[in-house]
Amino acid sequence: MSKLIVGIVGFGVVGSSVLKALLANRNIISARAGKEIEVKHIIVRDEAKAHIKLRNLNATDVKVSTNVDDILQDCEIEVVIELMGGVESAYEIAIKALKAKKAFITANKAMLAYHRYDIAPLANGLPVGFEASVCGGIPIIRVLKDGLSANHILAIAGILNGTSNYILTQMQQYNQDFYTALTQAQNLGYAEADPTLDISGGDAGHKLLILASLAYGINAMPEEILIEGIEGIMPDDIEFANEFGYVIKLLGIAKKQENEVELRVHPCMIKKGAMLSKVDNVMNGISVIGDYVGESMYYGAGAGGDATASSVVSDIIAIARGESAAMLGFSQPLEGNEHLKLKNIDEIYSQYYIRLYVCDKPGVLGQVSQILGQHNISIGAFLQKETNDKNIAKMLLSTHHCYERDINAALLELERLDSISQKPYKMRIEY
Amino acid sequence: MSKLIVGIVGFGVVGSSVLKALLANRNIISARAGKEIEVKHIIVRDEAKAHIKLRNLNATDVKVSTNVDDILQDCEIEVVIELMGGVESAYEIAIKALKAKKAFITANKAMLAYHRYDIAPLANGLPVGFEASVCGGIPIIRVLKDGLSANHILAIAGILNGTSNYILTQMQQYNQDFYTALTQAQNLGYAEADPTLDISGGDAGHKLLILASLAYGINAMPEEILIEGIEGIMPDDIEFANEFGYVIKLLGIAKKQENEVELRVHPCMIKKGAMLSKVDNVMNGISVIGDYVGESMYYGAGAGGDATASSVVSDIIAIARGESAAMLGFSQPLEGNEHLKLKNIDEIYSQYYIRLYVCDKPGVLGQVSQILGQHNISIGAFLQKETNDKNIAKMLLSTHHCYERDINAALLELERLDSISQKPYKMRIEY
Repeated sequence: MSKLIVGIVGFGVVGSSVLKALLANRNIISARAGKEIEVKHIIVRDEAKAHIKLRNLNATDVKVSTNVDDILQDCEIEVVIELMGGVESAYEIAIKALKAKKAFITANKAMLAYHRYDIAPLANGLPVGFEASVCGGIPIIRVLKDGLSANHILAIAGILNGTSNYILTQMQQYNQDFYTALTQAQNLGYAEADPTLDISGGDAGHKLLILASLAYGINAMPEEILIEGIEGIMPDDIEFANEFGYVIKLLGIAKKQENEVELRVHPCMIKKGAMLSKVDNVMNGISVIGDYVGESMYYGAGAGGDATASSVVSDIIAIARGESAAMLGFSQPLEGNEHLKLKNIDEIYSQYYIRLYVCDKPGVLGQVSQILGQHNISIGAFLQKETNDKNIAKMLLSTHHCYERDINAALLELERLDSISQKPYKMRIEY
Repeated sequence: MSKLIVGIVGFGVVGSSVLKALLANRNIISARAGKEIEVKHIIVRDEAKAHIKLRNLNATDVKVSTNVDDILQDCEIEVVIELMGGVESAYEIAIKALKAKKAFITANKAMLAYHRYDIAPLANGLPVGFEASVCGGIPIIRVLKDGLSANHILAIAGILNGTSNYILTQMQQYNQDFYTALTQAQNLGYAEADPTLDISGGDAGHKLLILASLAYGINAMPEEILIEGIEGIMPDDIEFANEFGYVIKLLGIAKKQENEVELRVHPCMIKKGAMLSKVDNVMNGISVIGDYVGESMYYGAGAGGDATASSVVSDIIAIARGESAAMLGFSQPLEGNEHLKLKNIDEIYSQYYIRLYVCDKPGVLGQVSQILGQHNISIGAFLQKETNDKNIAKMLLSTHHCYERDINAALLELERLDSISQKPYKMRIEY
């Protein structure tokens, strides 16, 4: 059987799992790939550590060094797999690998969020695999690129980050507050010491941008889209959600209407019956609506060495089989897509949930509803409760559909009222 | 832009949707495919009807005739798409298309259930697409063939038939009996006039066999596997399921242990929390457990012209892109797989639910539990209720894990008791 020889840059959790999978599942992988896959060389920071890992994996014949050029200059190596993280340094490896006429595989969503449209033209027929970059083990890249390729994608809504989903699940199912849930996630190894990227929505934003390119061929940068995190969610919000049949999830949402694409990441109330509402703990789930397929949903582990390795190795197998689709799924620009633009955040049209703490005195509700009304916002559900401070009541309400610009203007006006005791909080209601 | 020219055999619901999708989404499809897709010729039974349909689709330039040779002998046509149904006649078209060096696409699960291993060697490098044959719009073929290709598949459990799932949902959510729900499904067009294949589990069996080939490379025929339908399910069974936190679904199950593969289709009680338990009405859902990816789940429309067309067209696009993977995902036989055999039905190891109608007199429960005990079966949950007939009580119980041969032997013995007034009914409990 012929061989496909690969080199790996980075030998952390995912890198070791990739090598482990290739060795443990060698037979089935080569039967599916039609070639034997050999890891010839691994680039690491710490050679001594790497040698220990390799000994544990019974893979001492794999070469180890610290200089990526050792892989790039090795003519036998046909595929470079980047698993080291970082943005610019990883991008440089992509450039060098493709220039050296090697296929390129990466699990690096942050790098792709910035450089996917720099890499695509460099590929020039060489396969570039990035199944592992979004939702770990769920083959969502292939679903959008191949499985649903007949469709105009009307909408994507995804729980794209396991850490924040774990925290939200804990808050909702065990009445924990945000910081307790976060600490627990950190203790369990689900959250990094610095959890900012997970909690702020930044990581989900990177993934959403990759999915949006496959769906729409749109190039947008993380800084250009609406990204809100889960830090502001309070037990009151969960109480309201429960009362009115919602679950709170951090969603990445993409929608296209005519030549505008809407891309946003934010916490969201979604109906308890929706399939996405069942995606709990560290799991990920993505709902995709296509004009022919209707709604379909994909669920699985979003992170972890083995699940991510499953995707990296699937890319290797695809390359061994001679995969030839363009990196981002479009062999040529979609007609009319040169005019595609990002929808202005102000133009988002949604239902909203609003949390207000108000001075408990007559006439406040009237004031609130008057201001909302002046901004074309009408109230749907309403819940008012006392707080521990008997002068302050909490007012939790949902609106009918309205524009983001209107809700923001209304909240700004409300914030200025003497009777409002804290900055109002809003959350979108979708699905 | 270069063209890929296709011919379609069969112009019913799916055939028309395929043509409609190719026309309506022409721009995005050719951008993704890198080629323009042209339907040149359609083979039909009734030319006059076809011309009317083509006029409605604004596609009067498509040739129509009744003789499949018109497509097979047309050198311009590179892909033959079989959407006419039937087993042997469809298989013949596959043979002829591949012999004429044309790629072949089919949505025909019954034909593939019998002939997938006849077709695969004929393909000989020509692409054969069958994404539409299992679960309509869900790209589960590609998921198993490409997305999860790094994994040993430990288990598949799928709601593979929308009609039976609709009936079960109606029975459970609206307390309908089987025949009322079936009639309603027929009135809504979800069930055929002759619904046997859907209700008996036969259709799900065909699909399961296709999935099992992708997962394990095993060739088995519908007649060789356990297939039970949903006809025997009574409101009592639903009451028990409700009481003990289960939902009843018709599942296709595949599992591999060492060199044995277990393949079976039957109604099943599954835990209310499981993702599959949320797959209601005509929707399909498939849970796949891989050794690296863990559990992942795929949800979507299992039937309908447009959803099925989404899959057929995805196969066309893959061919246009130069897809080269082997039809069933294995480029060569998996080492050791020549020894793969089907697990004997008697060796199935499961929990069971049992429904007994017993004469309401002292000592019967003792008799029942004694007989079960003699066959190494211990009782889990138990529910006894009166019936309209005051001499008859219903005894609903679940067992701990035991072997199928033991449960069958025990039920046979129970059936012979004077105090048992009807043939005992059993259902497996899984997930």
